Amino acid sequence: MREIEARMRSQIGFDHHPDLIRALDHLLSAGGKRIRPRLVLLAAQLADAQEEASITLAAAIEMLHTATLVHDDLIDGALLRRGNPTLNAQWTPGATVLTGDYIFARAAHLASQTGSTALMKQFALTLMTIVNGEATQLFSRDEHLTFEGYLLRIYAKTAALFEISAEGASLLPGGDTALRSSLRTFGYNLGIAFQIMDDILDFTGDPDELGKPIASDLRQGLITLPTLMYLEQHQAEEDLALRIQHKQLSEDDILEVFASIRNSSAIVSSQEKADHHLDKAEQDLGTLPASPARAALAELVESLRHRHS
Amino acid sequence: MREIEARMRSQIGFDHHPDLIRALDHLLSAGGKRIRPRLVLLAAQLADAQEEASITLAAAIEMLHTATLVHDDLIDGALLRRGNPTLNAQWTPGATVLTGDYIFARAAHLASQTGSTALMKQFALTLMTIVNGEATQLFSRDEHLTFEGYLLRIYAKTAALFEISAEGASLLPGGDTALRSSLRTFGYNLGIAFQIMDDILDFTGDPDELGKPIASDLRQGLITLPTLMYLEQHQAEEDLALRIQHKQLSEDDILEVFASIRNSSAIVSSQEKADHHLDKAEQDLGTLPASPARAALAELVESLRHRHS
Repeated sequence: MREIEARMRSQIGFDHHPDLIRALDHLLSAGGKRIRPRLVLLAAQLADAQEEASITLAAAIEMLHTATLVHDDLIDGALLRRGNPTLNAQWTPGATVLTGDYIFARAAHLASQTGSTALMKQFALTLMTIVNGEATQLFSRDEHLTFEGYLLRIYAKTAALFEISAEGASLLPGGDTALRSSLRTFGYNLGIAFQIMDDILDFTGDPDELGKPIASDLRQGLITLPTLMYLEQHQAEEDLALRIQHKQLSEDDILEVFASIRNSSAIVSSQEKADHHLDKAEQDLGTLPASPARAALAELVESLRHRHS
Repeated sequence: MREIEARMRSQIGFDHHPDLIRALDHLLSAGGKRIRPRLVLLAAQLADAQEEASITLAAAIEMLHTATLVHDDLIDGALLRRGNPTLNAQWTPGATVLTGDYIFARAAHLASQTGSTALMKQFALTLMTIVNGEATQLFSRDEHLTFEGYLLRIYAKTAALFEISAEGASLLPGGDTALRSSLRTFGYNLGIAFQIMDDILDFTGDPDELGKPIASDLRQGLITLPTLMYLEQHQAEEDLALRIQHKQLSEDDILEVFASIRNSSAIVSSQEKADHHLDKAEQDLGTLPASPARAALAELVESLRHRHS
């Protein structure tokens, strides 16, 4: 993991503006769970890919993730991430846009250093999927959200990057491409479960541990799985969906809706959906060759079941 | 050229939000001179690269160019480009950021389809150079601009993309990598001359033909070569540089400064700098193998000498 950090921060051969480098350092030192890099390294061990290339891919994916967060937070006007001020809370929109672009470019440069054109192609497609998902969310706020629509949204937001983290390992030099499809499905299911858990934690987690304010999705006008399931069970409150999306709720309204959802069966139903995808991820692992890396991935799946931050 | 257009617009295999696709169509139909794609195709013929890959690279480079313009116009608050309303003049900042990101991703995807990792790496480096240049301009507005600083800025803004347009051809499948360095230098000199001409035309061109208002660089607080040379000759007006950069000039001031620069010898001195780089580009061509493609590139150089829009 230390090598991945070093790879992300490496300035060798670059002579870029100190403010850009400082912004990058600031973003990288905010840390985070680094679950995607861990996934890349374990999948690469499983697929027998070159270690050097797998460290590069892990750094590339974490950079791509960071870049999308920078633009996301700007667009959403989010002021905190993981308890730290976002870039847009401190800088002008222009500087924030450019920093995100710069990190995209660094991510693409890292990806190109893996030496795999198949990986590069998948990397670009993943960025298109992520951006298309954000655009769809931005353009289609008022449309009636279904469970399928929710799955598509969290696929673009989270699972697509988990997918390439696992699948990409098989595309690296030395990687066993026969494992590509199983690793891809494993990454997909893990990513979907991870995001559902994230959406549940927005209702059940400790704001201090999460590093974001209580009920932050509702505040942002976001309908996630717990809210969706609550609304399905409470058809009488049918205009609530629109009021959330149009941010028409007062602070008191938000806290009331928040408490209603948290105390409803929607939390357990959402957890069941997450568990379903974690079960599927475990089944996917079963189709992959037994190895210490596979055992470590199984532990990763298990740890997500009990995620609380 | 028609095949390049088709490559840029191709939706095969993509199922993305109609608004994104519409925005992309709108941007591509605005046209422009398409000088970069022409440069790619001719350099590819010269380097004997695969035609299919060269069309893909030309599309990738024009897409990358388009993406940087989208974010540029947003950051500068520009409302017109080539006589058409910019995306940010019609859309929210968030939608504009995402559209730019989407076009970056499409450009990277096209680049990966050339099948050349050397090209992909150079492509990512070029994006880093462009973004770093924009960031430097944004963060360092108040610093004293020198001729060297101006060259670095227009390298990032324009010549880096001309460079990869020519150099990239030699990195494509079938391309003669022995020509890489000469093509790179040729692209560099052509790009520098092109941008100097652009900056001169902002003073001497017909606003209708250019599709932008008169004195648009001065209005944006931009010091370009004609202004830089004028200031060197008029040391008495030393605070003028800061007043331009801080946008402290009234409309009358702008028109007066504009007329002073246009009627000064700074225009001819700037033209001499452009001619110098066009001469160098011709010399670079002299080191490349004689062919119809080389003759066509020589014509391209010649046409830039008489550019008036």
